[in-house]
Amino acid sequence: MTETRKTTIAVDAMGGDYAPEEIVAGAVEAARNNGLEPVLVGPLDVLEPVLAKYDINGLPIRCVHADSFIKEEENPALLAYRKPNSSIAIATKMVKSGEAQGVLGATATGALVTSAINFMGMLDGIDRPVIGGVLSGVAPKTAIFDLGVNMDCKPQHLLTFAIIGTVYARIFLNIPNPTVALLNVGKEEGKGNRLTRETYPLLAQSGLNFIGNVEGEAVMSGAANVIVCDAFVGNCLFKLCECGGDIIGRSFRSKSKNYPLIGWLFKGKIKQMMSTLVPPNSVGGGLIWGINGIAVKMHGHSRASEVASKLGQARLAVERDVVGCLKTELSSIREKISVN
Amino acid sequence: MTETRKTTIAVDAMGGDYAPEEIVAGAVEAARNNGLEPVLVGPLDVLEPVLAKYDINGLPIRCVHADSFIKEEENPALLAYRKPNSSIAIATKMVKSGEAQGVLGATATGALVTSAINFMGMLDGIDRPVIGGVLSGVAPKTAIFDLGVNMDCKPQHLLTFAIIGTVYARIFLNIPNPTVALLNVGKEEGKGNRLTRETYPLLAQSGLNFIGNVEGEAVMSGAANVIVCDAFVGNCLFKLCECGGDIIGRSFRSKSKNYPLIGWLFKGKIKQMMSTLVPPNSVGGGLIWGINGIAVKMHGHSRASEVASKLGQARLAVERDVVGCLKTELSSIREKISVN
Repeated sequence: MTETRKTTIAVDAMGGDYAPEEIVAGAVEAARNNGLEPVLVGPLDVLEPVLAKYDINGLPIRCVHADSFIKEEENPALLAYRKPNSSIAIATKMVKSGEAQGVLGATATGALVTSAINFMGMLDGIDRPVIGGVLSGVAPKTAIFDLGVNMDCKPQHLLTFAIIGTVYARIFLNIPNPTVALLNVGKEEGKGNRLTRETYPLLAQSGLNFIGNVEGEAVMSGAANVIVCDAFVGNCLFKLCECGGDIIGRSFRSKSKNYPLIGWLFKGKIKQMMSTLVPPNSVGGGLIWGINGIAVKMHGHSRASEVASKLGQARLAVERDVVGCLKTELSSIREKISVN
Repeated sequence: MTETRKTTIAVDAMGGDYAPEEIVAGAVEAARNNGLEPVLVGPLDVLEPVLAKYDINGLPIRCVHADSFIKEEENPALLAYRKPNSSIAIATKMVKSGEAQGVLGATATGALVTSAINFMGMLDGIDRPVIGGVLSGVAPKTAIFDLGVNMDCKPQHLLTFAIIGTVYARIFLNIPNPTVALLNVGKEEGKGNRLTRETYPLLAQSGLNFIGNVEGEAVMSGAANVIVCDAFVGNCLFKLCECGGDIIGRSFRSKSKNYPLIGWLFKGKIKQMMSTLVPPNSVGGGLIWGINGIAVKMHGHSRASEVASKLGQARLAVERDVVGCLKTELSSIREKISVN
C-alpha cells in the first residue's frame, strides 16, 4: 500500500513580524497534525538553526534556500526585478513549477500579491486580485467580497465578486447554494449609486442565488451568505467590525465598573462573550482570489497557531480545488449572461 | 418690559406614524418647557379635538389649517403640484413668508425635502441636501456627513460636507475648531478610490482643521470630530452602527443565559449599558443642510418626547443662525481655494 501523497505548501518563512521563529513553529505543528507537507523557504543559515530546535524526525517538513527576503517597507512593484530570489518569489515559483500546490506567507500584502500575479498569473477575465471573508463572529455564515484592491468598480467586477463569494461559501462555509446580496442603501431595485443600480440587473440574471439588496447591518445580521460591494466600502465596514468589537468591549468594561459586584462576577466572562463579536481568523479569509493558483496571505502579526491554521486552510483550498471550481463557475455564468 | 419674541417652528402635525396625537403632545410639551412657539399645521377639524385634551391656557401654541396631508407612499416629486395645500407644504411656506423661523416634520423624507427645496430654495453652490450627525454613543463628538442623498460624489461635494460638518460640530457639539478627516482605506495620502485621492488635496488647502485620512473604525473610535464620505458609504456605516448595537445586545443577552446568576444580576443593567452604544437621537441630526432655511426631519416613528426634543433642536438651529454660519463658512473657504 502506497502512502497518499501529501499536499505541499510552500511557506515564506521570512515574512511577518515574528518570522522566522513563529512561522517555523507553526509549520512544525501543521506537519505533525494537519496531514500536509510545509516547505519553509528562506536563507538556510537562518532557518535550519530554528528548525533544529524541534524534533522533526519523520515529519513531512523541509527547507528550501532563498538568498534574500522582502522587508515590509519595500516597494512591491519593483521586487520582481530587484529580488528575483527572495523567499516569497522562490516560494511562489515552486507552485508554478509544480513542486508545491500552494503558497502561504505573512509577507507584506503587496509583495505576496505581486509575486503571485507575476509567477502564477491571473484567471481569464479577472483583472485584479480579490479578497474577502467573514467579518463578524455574530454572522459566521456571511462573507463580504471585495475587501481587497478593487476600489473603483464596474458592475462586472461585482458580478465576479459574487461568483467568487459563491465558491467561497460552498467550499469554506459548507453552504451548497449560498444566497448572494448586493450591499446597498435600500432594499428596492433602483436604489443606490450608479454602480449598484447597474449591478442589480446583472446579478439578477446571473443564475446565482441572488436575493436582492441588503443594507449595512446585513454584515452582522447575516441576511445573506455572500454580500458584494466595492473594496472601498468593504474595507470601511471591515475596519469598523474589526475594531468595533474592541471599542465596545472597552466601553462595556469601563461601564461595568459602576457595578463592582457584576464587574467582579463578570471578569473573564466578558472577554469570552466579546470574543465572538470580533472577526474570527476568518476561514479561508486569506486566500487571494483571481490568481491562477493557491496563494494565501496571513496577518503580519501571525503566531504559530495561526500559521498552522492557515496551512490547514491552504491545504483545504488545494484539496477542494478552489481554482478549478472558480474557473467552472466563471465560464458557466459568463455563458449565461454573455458578458466578457 | 416687553417679552422676548419666541422662536416659531411650523410643525407638520400630520406627518409620522403616530400623527397627530404624539406630534401634538410633543408640541404641547415643548411649548411648556422649551421657550418656543410651535405652530401645528393640518386639518383643523382633526387637530383641534386632539389639542383640546390639553390645558394650553396661556401656552404659546396654535394651529394653522391645511386641507390635506401627504401619505408615506406618495411620490414626493409630484406632491408640489398635486397637493400645494398639504400640511408639509403649508408649514414650509410659513418659513418662506417669515411667519415661522423653521419647519419640523416626521413627514416622509422625500416630501419634506422636496417641499423644503421648492419653497425655501438651496444655498448657492449646494446642489442637493446633505444630512449627517453622530452615529454612535461611544463616539459622541464624532459626526459623519453625508448620510443623505449624495451617492455619486465629486471632490467638491466632500469639501462641502466638510464645511457643513464643521458648522455642525461648532453649533451642536460645542467644539470651537473641529477636526475634519476624510474616510479612507488607509492613513496615507494617495490611498483610496479616485474620489478620495482627488478630495485629499482639496481638504488639505481648505483652511479647515483637516487632519488627513481615517479608516472605518474612526466612526466609533472618535478619531475626528467630522468625518466626510459619500452618502453610499455613510449610509452603510450608519445602518451597521444603528443595528449593530441591537445585534450585539441580543447576542450578548443570549450568551449571558449560560451564566444564570450573572444574567439575573445583570438584568436591566445590560440595557442601560448598551444604550450608549446605539446611535442616540443625534443632536442636530435631523437638520436638512444646504436648504436656505431651517428644515428638520424626525424619524417616522417619533413619539412625543422626540417631537419636543427635535423642536428644541430646531429652535437652537434658528437661534444660533446655522444657515448664516454656513453661508459665511462656504464663501470664506471658496474664496480661499477659488473653486465654484
